[in-house]
Amino acid sequence: MTEYSINRSQLVCVASFLAFPGKEVALIEALGSLIPDTRREPGCIRYELNQSRDEPRRITFVEKFVDVAAFETHCAKDAIQEYFHKVMPALVESFHVETYHEIIV
Amino acid sequence: MTEYSINRSQLVCVASFLAFPGKEVALIEALGSLIPDTRREPGCIRYELNQSRDEPRRITFVEKFVDVAAFETHCAKDAIQEYFHKVMPALVESFHVETYHEIIV
Amino acid sequence: MTEYSINRSQLVCVASFLAFPGKEVALIEALGSLIPDTRREPGCIRYELNQSRDEPRRITFVEKFVDVAAFETHCAKDAIQEYFHKVMPALVESFHVETYHEIIV
Amino acid sequence: MTEYSINRSQLVCVASFLAFPGKEVALIEALGSLIPDTRREPGCIRYELNQSRDEPRRITFVEKFVDVAAFETHCAKDAIQEYFHKVMPALVESFHVETYHEIIV
Repeated sequence: MTEYSINRSQLVCVASFLAFPGKEVALIEALGSLIPDTRREPGCIRYELNQSRDEPRRITFVEKFVDVAAFETHCAKDAIQEYFHKVMPALVESFHVETYHEIIV
Repeated sequence: MTEYSINRSQLVCVASFLAFPGKEVALIEALGSLIPDTRREPGCIRYELNQSRDEPRRITFVEKFVDVAAFETHCAKDAIQEYFHKVMPALVESFHVETYHEIIV
Repeated sequence: MTEYSINRSQLVCVASFLAFPGKEVALIEALGSLIPDTRREPGCIRYELNQSRDEPRRITFVEKFVDVAAFETHCAKDAIQEYFHKVMPALVESFHVETYHEIIV
Repeated sequence: MTEYSINRSQLVCVASFLAFPGKEVALIEALGSLIPDTRREPGCIRYELNQSRDEPRRITFVEKFVDVAAFETHCAKDAIQEYFHKVMPALVESFHVETYHEIIV
């Protein structure tokens, strides 16, 4: 039997966006532009953008923050709010954001 | 405009499993038991297990390997094959595995 | 000119230990035994042990914690105190611990 | 007893530079300018720059590459050669580069 525990402090987020056809590059540029400032946030542990190999329109952030408050601070930033409310609607067909706690073995 | 490039060598994988009701702990133990040996694979960069905060039955690996060959070597390991073919059917309602390349800005 | 900022919240530590001749394996085992519990600490971002290629008696931790308080909590743990005060004197010829803040570009 | 193994494929490097008095900022800018292109190298797993808290003139890279060849490719890049041969002599009082293999427990 594997012993495990849950790190309930840190927060992991997988945020996946499906670009409209032909909008992949614009979506990558919009999401990529968020990276430098986010990595400067003191609560940011990881903020990595990825493109699906089988479905190149699928662009997915893998994120880790030091705690829930740091994640909420991130989400409330002007640039993030602007992405979700002004940029994303023109570029994204559907999206899914799921937050996690890491399981430590 | 954000300059970016795609790291087409390294491979990122997000593998998400939805446990049958009541099978979360058994699933976490089964997936957790794969971690130590996988982290010893020379091609493994990251192999982290997570539990969804909103849907605790959702258990998701965030993985990174040095290249596609290292990922395929991992997938072919006896323990991984046994998980997918013998262990998972009794524990998992649905699953999705997506592979990515990281976008570097 | 490269713009940069310092992440003064998170704490990076490089802790390097030179084993007495013939004590490398005992030192690796002693330091390795600290890894699982440390990775369960909510403030631990990274805790990786390494062996020098040119000088195999040199065993070095690369560490990252969410903040200074998390690092101090770690250092005050019984297992860490026991290592420094009871285990290390018999195994280690010299050591150096240096703490850092990450520079974000 | 703690079981462990050595990942002899991947290569970890800790490269530490002590700036001449008054040259810290110039050194951070010179080393920081190397980060974006290095992170685009397919063999780069980690390339993080840090400033010592107790000795701010000490600037240290924590690096990980997929294998020795990827590290050597990195070291042979024009920008790295130029740093070591043309930039560093004016900025750095002393330096130490040590390479490691990670110990996996």
